[in-house]
Amino acid sequence: MERVDGRKLRFQHRRGEVLAAATEHALEEGLDDLSLRKVAQSVGVSHATLVHHFASKDRLVAEIVDRVLAETLSLPDMPRDDPDPLRAIWRRATSESGRRYVRLFVAITGRAMYGDPALATAVAASMRQRNDLIAAGLVRYGCPESEAQAVATSLMSTLRGLLVDLLATGDEQRVAAAFDDFAADVQRRALNAFS
Amino acid sequence: MERVDGRKLRFQHRRGEVLAAATEHALEEGLDDLSLRKVAQSVGVSHATLVHHFASKDRLVAEIVDRVLAETLSLPDMPRDDPDPLRAIWRRATSESGRRYVRLFVAITGRAMYGDPALATAVAASMRQRNDLIAAGLVRYGCPESEAQAVATSLMSTLRGLLVDLLATGDEQRVAAAFDDFAADVQRRALNAFS
Repeated sequence: MERVDGRKLRFQHRRGEVLAAATEHALEEGLDDLSLRKVAQSVGVSHATLVHHFASKDRLVAEIVDRVLAETLSLPDMPRDDPDPLRAIWRRATSESGRRYVRLFVAITGRAMYGDPALATAVAASMRQRNDLIAAGLVRYGCPESEAQAVATSLMSTLRGLLVDLLATGDEQRVAAAFDDFAADVQRRALNAFS
Repeated sequence: MERVDGRKLRFQHRRGEVLAAATEHALEEGLDDLSLRKVAQSVGVSHATLVHHFASKDRLVAEIVDRVLAETLSLPDMPRDDPDPLRAIWRRATSESGRRYVRLFVAITGRAMYGDPALATAVAASMRQRNDLIAAGLVRYGCPESEAQAVATSLMSTLRGLLVDLLATGDEQRVAAAFDDFAADVQRRALNAFS
């Protein structure tokens, strides 16, 4: 019990750490039975601490969703002149740790389809924000600003779709070949249109 | 009660009709609380009739999943020489009735991510089957056979991804622009490579 109390103290002012631990809980268990009480138990903080930091389960779930989506298809620590940013994103998303995030993201999106308005709002906001980031990245790589949102939407859709196929079927070879085909096409377009 | 008995009689030998009605039930309610008992009640057949036709809930769900996926991205009644099959698929999937199927498909895929092996198997089988159909279609349109599986996987992934974005965000204009961008790129590729 002393250990648990120690964690409780440690977490009292560490919102970020609590959120990371709550996200870890969701990555393992999914969101189906997520409750503030279970998260508190699993993370080792008091229910009051969770409420202090996140106010409600909806708010906590929204922040988990945001973290998960940000981790799912991101360009972290990438040099601005990476010659193949698409492949860097893909490698990260299909890594062992990346797949855990993709899996939870797909489950979250599925849950948002029937009657969970808070979740649906969080997913929509995160998708738009992510799309804006990728669109800005495309402009840096030479894509005309007028096309950036549409191209970003199409790129992200393909990546998400390929990842869902990979996780659902486990067909590593077929999906890798599809990614190669897609990446080659994007390279061709970038050479023709962006430069 | 007489009406219900009439339906029960009528359904006794009509497996297809029962499946259609069960699918309709799932399209309205999602799969979250689906049970043979509830489906029987909603469809108006006896529990015994359902078991007679489908043996188990898993089997019924697998067949619903198959129907839903087949309806979601399909090329029904399309002339073999349709000049723009991609747009025909897209129009159908984004129609009012198409969106109901897409919504359930996204929910099903999400549920398959955490601990529902029967569902995961059904989703994987349906995705592979659908991919084979599209690959065969691509070959008819001039795509080299060695590339057809990869191209089909990439095409289907983009379409699924765009549909998820549309349903999750409701951003009709952004997603329509992304589809146009994608369709134009596919046309360019088809002209360059397939002919």
